Amino acid sequence: MDRFHFGKHSSSQYNEEMESIRTHLMEMGGLVEKQVGDALQALLAGDSELAEQVLTVEDRVDSLEKKIDEECARVLALRAPAASDLRMLIAVSKCVSDLERIGDESAKIAAMAIQLAQEGESPSGYVEARHIGNHVRRMLHSALDAFARFDADKAVEVAGEDAQIDMEYRSAMRSLVTFMMEDPRSISRVLNVIWTLRSLERVGDHSRNICEQIIYLVKGKDVRHISVDEMEKEVKGKP
Amino acid sequence: MDRFHFGKHSSSQYNEEMESIRTHLMEMGGLVEKQVGDALQALLAGDSELAEQVLTVEDRVDSLEKKIDEECARVLALRAPAASDLRMLIAVSKCVSDLERIGDESAKIAAMAIQLAQEGESPSGYVEARHIGNHVRRMLHSALDAFARFDADKAVEVAGEDAQIDMEYRSAMRSLVTFMMEDPRSISRVLNVIWTLRSLERVGDHSRNICEQIIYLVKGKDVRHISVDEMEKEVKGKP
Repeated sequence: MDRFHFGKHSSSQYNEEMESIRTHLMEMGGLVEKQVGDALQALLAGDSELAEQVLTVEDRVDSLEKKIDEECARVLALRAPAASDLRMLIAVSKCVSDLERIGDESAKIAAMAIQLAQEGESPSGYVEARHIGNHVRRMLHSALDAFARFDADKAVEVAGEDAQIDMEYRSAMRSLVTFMMEDPRSISRVLNVIWTLRSLERVGDHSRNICEQIIYLVKGKDVRHISVDEMEKEVKGKP
Repeated sequence: MDRFHFGKHSSSQYNEEMESIRTHLMEMGGLVEKQVGDALQALLAGDSELAEQVLTVEDRVDSLEKKIDEECARVLALRAPAASDLRMLIAVSKCVSDLERIGDESAKIAAMAIQLAQEGESPSGYVEARHIGNHVRRMLHSALDAFARFDADKAVEVAGEDAQIDMEYRSAMRSLVTFMMEDPRSISRVLNVIWTLRSLERVGDHSRNICEQIIYLVKGKDVRHISVDEMEKEVKGKP
């Protein structure tokens, strides 16, 4: 396994600042992970109250994004960080954007859950939403775990999940289109399920982006826009 | 009008590095703007060749993203930038992510254009796609223009366009859902138009994000997650 440790600085305050950024990123990650889980649960159980709660918590996600970016800017301005510290700040700044967007997607799912709960019927596509939703949640959890442990090998592995989620998503879409054709009265309702699947698929994309930032942070290599195979080669290669 | 000028540095190389980053961001912006226009044109004219070209050019957008982020990291590491230079680098780093995603959305539209051209019929929703598409293109163009001129007032004005685009999008969606219900055989085809509208609406969101970064850069204020009215107050207030 690939581990990575921050250099400690002679200034204990600098150490604390870096540690605080890491802690806040993990806090934001945990919060967003819960948002995805709650939004999915609200959808599947028709629980509008839980869905409303997801919408309320979105503000906290947004404030964490601003707070973390502010902390990063302050350290960049005052400490002139280099090497792994600088990569950490750059990676965190990219990751908070992805986490905030995962929060957004959760809010979209929660809004769909409220609409679907009002309609009161159990629509088709829920089996697929549960399946893809659970897969995406595991992927996000593993991505955050890889970040917490600075584990580049794990990040490559997790990034590979995205392709599977995309496949599951496309297959679910095909069944839902067939379903709509067979029962046109369900169109508006099924479209809401389709938006939910789309949001879940996006969470997978953002989780992959987080994995790419972990690899940048640990290995100093920009692995965006390459295949997972190429990514693996980059990670196995010399740093 | 609100103007903003970079402090010049005693190191002419540092000046050149900052200027190069700005130039590359504008190049990426211009390229992405063309991608949106071409993708829309390919869709409306049923021009698969143009759509294929959009898909090819996506690689160039992706490399520009990596190149600009690398330039920013290098300046951060070697120059220990402060104040407006630091904000410029942070804003650029956020903007390239949005530009890359606009490029992604253009590629999605191009892929839909190819599918729709193969089906050979002129489907409903094209009037809406043209209308929203042109609005989004103007918004993106103005956002990039505001960045080039460091114009925070203009950025607020452009950010306000996003709400209108969202309204146009929701109205178009309602007509398309009605259309699908009336003609269920069209579902699969109309869904492709729906994905296109969704992508265009996302381009509007990303253009708004760029406007927020312009305000951060010029005014030093983080105006994410607030209303356009509040944004305006922040910009009119003291820097």
